[in-house]
Amino acid sequence: MKHLLSIEDLTAEQIHHLLELTDHMVEINSRPIPKVPALRGKNVVSLFFEDSTRTRTSFDTAAKRLGADTMNFTVSSSSVSKGESLRDTIETISAMGVDAFVVRHKSSGAPQMITRWTDASIINAGDGWHQHPTQALLDCYTIRTSLNRCDSFEGLRIAVVGDIKHSRVARSDVQAFTALGAHVTLVAPPTLLPPAVETWPVDVSHDLDALLPDLDVLYLLRVQRERMDDALLPSLHEYSMLYGLTPARAERLAPHALVMHPGPMNRGVEMVADPGELPGSVILNQVTNGVAVRMAVLFWLLGSGSDLNRTEIS
Amino acid sequence: MKHLLSIEDLTAEQIHHLLELTDHMVEINSRPIPKVPALRGKNVVSLFFEDSTRTRTSFDTAAKRLGADTMNFTVSSSSVSKGESLRDTIETISAMGVDAFVVRHKSSGAPQMITRWTDASIINAGDGWHQHPTQALLDCYTIRTSLNRCDSFEGLRIAVVGDIKHSRVARSDVQAFTALGAHVTLVAPPTLLPPAVETWPVDVSHDLDALLPDLDVLYLLRVQRERMDDALLPSLHEYSMLYGLTPARAERLAPHALVMHPGPMNRGVEMVADPGELPGSVILNQVTNGVAVRMAVLFWLLGSGSDLNRTEIS
Amino acid sequence: MKHLLSIEDLTAEQIHHLLELTDHMVEINSRPIPKVPALRGKNVVSLFFEDSTRTRTSFDTAAKRLGADTMNFTVSSSSVSKGESLRDTIETISAMGVDAFVVRHKSSGAPQMITRWTDASIINAGDGWHQHPTQALLDCYTIRTSLNRCDSFEGLRIAVVGDIKHSRVARSDVQAFTALGAHVTLVAPPTLLPPAVETWPVDVSHDLDALLPDLDVLYLLRVQRERMDDALLPSLHEYSMLYGLTPARAERLAPHALVMHPGPMNRGVEMVADPGELPGSVILNQVTNGVAVRMAVLFWLLGSGSDLNRTEIS
Repeated sequence: MKHLLSIEDLTAEQIHHLLELTDHMVEINSRPIPKVPALRGKNVVSLFFEDSTRTRTSFDTAAKRLGADTMNFTVSSSSVSKGESLRDTIETISAMGVDAFVVRHKSSGAPQMITRWTDASIINAGDGWHQHPTQALLDCYTIRTSLNRCDSFEGLRIAVVGDIKHSRVARSDVQAFTALGAHVTLVAPPTLLPPAVETWPVDVSHDLDALLPDLDVLYLLRVQRERMDDALLPSLHEYSMLYGLTPARAERLAPHALVMHPGPMNRGVEMVADPGELPGSVILNQVTNGVAVRMAVLFWLLGSGSDLNRTEIS
Repeated sequence: MKHLLSIEDLTAEQIHHLLELTDHMVEINSRPIPKVPALRGKNVVSLFFEDSTRTRTSFDTAAKRLGADTMNFTVSSSSVSKGESLRDTIETISAMGVDAFVVRHKSSGAPQMITRWTDASIINAGDGWHQHPTQALLDCYTIRTSLNRCDSFEGLRIAVVGDIKHSRVARSDVQAFTALGAHVTLVAPPTLLPPAVETWPVDVSHDLDALLPDLDVLYLLRVQRERMDDALLPSLHEYSMLYGLTPARAERLAPHALVMHPGPMNRGVEMVADPGELPGSVILNQVTNGVAVRMAVLFWLLGSGSDLNRTEIS
Repeated sequence: MKHLLSIEDLTAEQIHHLLELTDHMVEINSRPIPKVPALRGKNVVSLFFEDSTRTRTSFDTAAKRLGADTMNFTVSSSSVSKGESLRDTIETISAMGVDAFVVRHKSSGAPQMITRWTDASIINAGDGWHQHPTQALLDCYTIRTSLNRCDSFEGLRIAVVGDIKHSRVARSDVQAFTALGAHVTLVAPPTLLPPAVETWPVDVSHDLDALLPDLDVLYLLRVQRERMDDALLPSLHEYSMLYGLTPARAERLAPHALVMHPGPMNRGVEMVADPGELPGSVILNQVTNGVAVRMAVLFWLLGSGSDLNRTEIS
């Protein structure tokens, strides 16, 4: 693989391979000095046209732990503000010597388009409503380790709750979870379901409460407050009553069930209970695993010929 | 010690220990390659909710010279702007793997509160009007080396001049200077003295000129121009006439007396004379010593089990 | 040499020496791990009072490939916004330990002025309309390698086209190209020619089309859209018709002729043809060579006593 653009491009075997590679990275991260020189001399550039400190930092940390050099570009400080075309910006940065671009863009398909203008690897870190593949991989890794499901997600029941329509996380997660064999139910108000949802390999429900006792994983999506302005949501309070994780709903989950959220959380909206009090919350594990998964992806794309077992420190 | 939140938490012995550790760091900084691998693999994150390039850079330089990795977060670019709570932000960044947070916040007590949400060490880099402990330590180190007072500040006469009320530097410095035995006089207009100043272990004066010939250290605080708007200051010109360091006042200082300022200076307000022309000015020494003091603090908090004498370069 | 402020300060021999040093850096950049520890422990600070991600990144990459540490200051986030004087800012940053400042400033002469306030080396990365010496060096290196002109530019015919008057690139390039023996013709509307152009060692023409077939190098300058507001340009369309590189003009260039641009390009204005379709375009080579030239400049100024042939990796 040269690029990571979409979960759709991965076979179940490739997903499993990346999750096994993540196991290695978790071991590296547990060392007193959590660094290896596997990508020494590689240059990883994050190119964020949308703000996301969280995702950018996770990739940055991952790259540094593998010994790569990192550079950050944000739109506001780049020549794009002088009217330069995206293509010229990519070609120019590329010409300085780049091995991988980590791209976030508000337009679906932008990372794909960028592959035409550079020889570097492209990692999609979120494009519009389309895809956020490393989020799906870290979610799979979190489920895999928390529920001890190394071989397959066969038989797992996962509900993804919230604004499915506008969510790249939902699209990526549904593809990854079902590729590994899980059974996914989408739970959302009708205005926040995607068009052609009947073609997705999922069930749809508007009744979260009926599902709760049977779930292995409750995956809450972030409510975008701007959906209120679009009149797609009645009120945050009403959303909360119907789809939010309240303490009462949390009690109806099975003891082994996981609660997940891609962050940042809206406390009091989709997350009414205190996640610190929920025994099944693996929300911070998701963040921790995010660094390891991104190390696996970077090594997979750039580490050809490099020995992951060298422990000399960069 | 796990955290450095306030000078009040330190005994005089601990302050002396940190200043002796700073001597080691000054020696390291004098080498052709001023770096040691003592904190290799440690991750130091600066989390600044108030802008301060100067302090942030000083900590950043200190961490890099000890071989640590560094990351910078500023409020404007973080998820806090998406409405995430401070607690969730801290827990999330922590989950990526952080050994120390360097925190600046406009609210007194914020660094203390953050200790509850992470296992990382917290270093207070300035919280509201409350504390700025590394500033006090670098000021002590500067006095100690410039006046050759390694054992104690007993008998030293120090005047701290300016807006004491709103100054975390003044609070921290007064505690540190008096802990080491110095005699401190606060000099300020009555509107800029703190409430309950009579409980401080200091003298108070409104007459700078009477004090000048007997001082060992004249410490000028920065005048915040916004105090004018609060009607706490008559005019910058009048402040300057009564409390500014003019060339005439500089001539009345003893030959050995030090002039200090935490920066950035308001030339023509509290600093009327050209500091480059003052033989006693150690203002740039303060900046240089700031890097070494912060190296000492980082090593003290994170260096347990690490050998400072390894000179292999990171 | 301690500083690099202007091409005028360099002899032809020194320019040749820097271009030969750049050959070494190009070789280093071609290695699997393009890094050497030649400047390990040196601290290179970029101080940009004007935005330029492109130039800053090029210097940053260059410094890191030589093993130096780097820090970035931009005006908006520095104490300059709190009213600190430029001199105090420089002296303060300097006191933390700086080996070189890379300075961009909108005022001609600012880098020169800064040399008075610090012991660090100053590299001019663009000051007003005055100079941008590393741009001229990378342009010379690109011509030298693309046209195989290692000994001299004697006999080369170069046209520099566009807004000469306001261009530090034009001033630097004309000095460098003519120092190496090239024959330079300036092509511009009369309003965009500099005062006293008759004292420059160049020819002046308003007729690009007449020159095209005889050129070895066509160097296009960026049109600043704000010149329109100053009424120095009739319209972008008219500029394009008279001075832009259209496909028709491109066809009239000699087969070996180079097309160059300092970037970022205004497509459809000075660059009407698609540069990706022009066989003579070396615009991306200019960017690639920029990193190597800046490595050469940094090593030249800071590398005294350091061995460029050590390949141990930092």
